[in-house]
Amino acid sequence: MISRTDVEAARLRVGSRVRTTPVFEADGLWLKLEQLQHTGSFKARGAFNRVLAAVEHGGLPPAGVVAASGGNAGLAVAHVARELGTPAEVYVPETAPAVKVARLRALGASVRQVGREYAEAYEAATKRAADSGALFCHPYDQPEVCAGQGTLALELEEQTGGVDTVLVAVGGGGLMAGIAAALEGRARVVAVEPEGCPSFHAALAAGKPVDAEVSGVAADSLGARRTGEIPFAVAHRTGVTSLLVGDEDVIAARRALWERHRIAIEHGTAAAYAALLTGAYEPTEGERVAIICCGANTDPSDLAH
Amino acid sequence: MISRTDVEAARLRVGSRVRTTPVFEADGLWLKLEQLQHTGSFKARGAFNRVLAAVEHGGLPPAGVVAASGGNAGLAVAHVARELGTPAEVYVPETAPAVKVARLRALGASVRQVGREYAEAYEAATKRAADSGALFCHPYDQPEVCAGQGTLALELEEQTGGVDTVLVAVGGGGLMAGIAAALEGRARVVAVEPEGCPSFHAALAAGKPVDAEVSGVAADSLGARRTGEIPFAVAHRTGVTSLLVGDEDVIAARRALWERHRIAIEHGTAAAYAALLTGAYEPTEGERVAIICCGANTDPSDLAH
Repeated sequence: MISRTDVEAARLRVGSRVRTTPVFEADGLWLKLEQLQHTGSFKARGAFNRVLAAVEHGGLPPAGVVAASGGNAGLAVAHVARELGTPAEVYVPETAPAVKVARLRALGASVRQVGREYAEAYEAATKRAADSGALFCHPYDQPEVCAGQGTLALELEEQTGGVDTVLVAVGGGGLMAGIAAALEGRARVVAVEPEGCPSFHAALAAGKPVDAEVSGVAADSLGARRTGEIPFAVAHRTGVTSLLVGDEDVIAARRALWERHRIAIEHGTAAAYAALLTGAYEPTEGERVAIICCGANTDPSDLAH
Repeated sequence: MISRTDVEAARLRVGSRVRTTPVFEADGLWLKLEQLQHTGSFKARGAFNRVLAAVEHGGLPPAGVVAASGGNAGLAVAHVARELGTPAEVYVPETAPAVKVARLRALGASVRQVGREYAEAYEAATKRAADSGALFCHPYDQPEVCAGQGTLALELEEQTGGVDTVLVAVGGGGLMAGIAAALEGRARVVAVEPEGCPSFHAALAAGKPVDAEVSGVAADSLGARRTGEIPFAVAHRTGVTSLLVGDEDVIAARRALWERHRIAIEHGTAAAYAALLTGAYEPTEGERVAIICCGANTDPSDLAH
């Protein structure tokens, strides 16, 4: 479990190693442009906090850090390791696209391709960390990771003077949890998922994290099959609510953000905007609403006319 | 001629009708994200100031406003007219792409397609304005237009605490002039053009605006054949300097801005960033440099891997 205090500590620890990303107000809505963060998503915040906390508590092991992710979390861990001068091993499935493997290697990571599914790469990564003594960096289910992600909410508060509501897309739940902890008692947090990636929605219904089937246009970034234990506990305590939107709504919202504001983001990220465009979330008069543009590791080709 | 006083007056006049666009600091460089402005470029600033100044000085004519541009200036004038509830006629060549005509129409403008080249559309627009009494909105060579564009430099100053140098891409020169007037005696302004669109470079060499051949990857946004008289006079007075970059440098800079920062911009806009990447402009140690991301009306398909 984490609280605002942990997020504040993360912010001090991480300092200027992460970028203060700008906030943009358009048509009465606040957009936190977190896709401008190092490696194109919010994930560097949590990864820095995880690794720097280990530095504080006895230093990093010679084996460095290990992660399992062909996506934003893997890129962030590779970036953090390079910045801190420690080795990074990143486990991905054998099916990972060559372009993703190349990006990880370009950031200096050793890429290990294991198994046909993410779960196998994950197993191999945790085993490797246990064997080598390397620090395992989970994509969402570690307190330092969640607290690090929450630092963007402290920035958002300062940049806007405070908001009533934050809409955020949810995969494994680390960002949601960080924001909810940071803004507990100060703003409501609404978790938005595409219908094809309903892990958090299913967890709320079941009263605990449960496995969900994941598919659809945002599965590459939001496709965690099960909400993390820590994110769920934080969300439950702070009263995070859940909304689902359709894949077609996500596609339309991503396109609308480009057409209206020239902001290019991932499909997963667009789920939060989709909740507004579809009316799934209807702000009241004067409600100060922010959405988190949390990632842009996307192919922008289909944004052309 | 315009001065900082005109820019300050423009800012008061235009007020919240234009967006305060965010500034993003990355790797010691300030990026003014003006592509997030209404209609995707800085042009709304000047267009609002031009039209609102006319409102103050006796009101708008029943015939509304007229412009000649199939690009960013036309979109901005159409937007301004719609916001202020006045008719807009926008003249473009018969060769204007259907998608540009459609965008102007979607903003409520009446589109007139005249002639095979921009010059013919321009002639028809000025004649129409003279005949109908409509207010002609030049894309760059009117004092209110230049002063309006300069309002972004006042924002930039406040957002950064002041910079030493602004690098800006130049077409007809309205934005350059506005910035140079706003920051006269406070910061140096460097005008960057692709070698294929060297109007301002040629004007500096000749000591006055002269016609230049325009071509290349950025000609759609920077392809004014001759720097405006007002922009040239302001640039001359304030000591704006000129740099040229190659088309291939512009293409590489546009791609780098996407790869590094997930910012998608027009080729023309990327010229300013290219000046840094190529070393055409080399900041000194500690120099506070800003580049203006002035437009993103671009097809992002070629930013894919």
